[in-house]
Amino acid sequence: MSSVEIKQVIVVRTDLQMGKGKIAVQVAHASLSSAEIVKKHNSSLFKRWTLNGQAKVALKIESLEQLLDLQNSAKKKGIFCYLVQDKGLTQIDEGTTTCLAIGPANSLEIDEITSELKLL
Amino acid sequence: MSSVEIKQVIVVRTDLQMGKGKIAVQVAHASLSSAEIVKKHNSSLFKRWTLNGQAKVALKIESLEQLLDLQNSAKKKGIFCYLVQDKGLTQIDEGTTTCLAIGPANSLEIDEITSELKLL
Repeated sequence: MSSVEIKQVIVVRTDLQMGKGKIAVQVAHASLSSAEIVKKHNSSLFKRWTLNGQAKVALKIESLEQLLDLQNSAKKKGIFCYLVQDKGLTQIDEGTTTCLAIGPANSLEIDEITSELKLL
Repeated sequence: MSSVEIKQVIVVRTDLQMGKGKIAVQVAHASLSSAEIVKKHNSSLFKRWTLNGQAKVALKIESLEQLLDLQNSAKKKGIFCYLVQDKGLTQIDEGTTTCLAIGPANSLEIDEITSELKLL
């Protein structure tokens, strides 16, 4: 997906054994929340992303520690992101951190911190 | 999830054999697009949904026909919704209709048209 100029990446923990419906809702929550932050702080970037098909890619990560490291890396680069802590109504404990949405942001900048992660 | 006043439901076709990452991205696309429509046309509803935890539920459906019927039912009730047609870069053919986001809207109204569908 590096052919798109702007994308959003959502990174999901695979060590929580969530089902596909649970994962889908967590990813949607992350995606929407991070997109709203970008829309608020950089509306032109949000608009360009939307007009170009709103590219999204879901990647996987194996632990909370790695996910938090990735969040720090994104913050250091000035990329907006959103970390989801689940309400724990189903499948997992309350407050569990499930995934991280990064961007929408410049694809190359996101690739610099996510290139080692595989597709979900 | 009928304990929440406002929710968004995303209904996913299970006859397409999409993987969990593909499903997650399709659901996120539907969720964000429908939420943006509601934000534009009924910002107070969007705001209430967001302030109350942005409840989302992923449900499954077995065919395109049933999905389009559901879209019609939502439209007849005046509920905003968004149908995703995939770009077909991976796993499925271009233009394939993958899922439908309904709302955010009144939970009881959504339940009237989705109560027979099971969790994804």
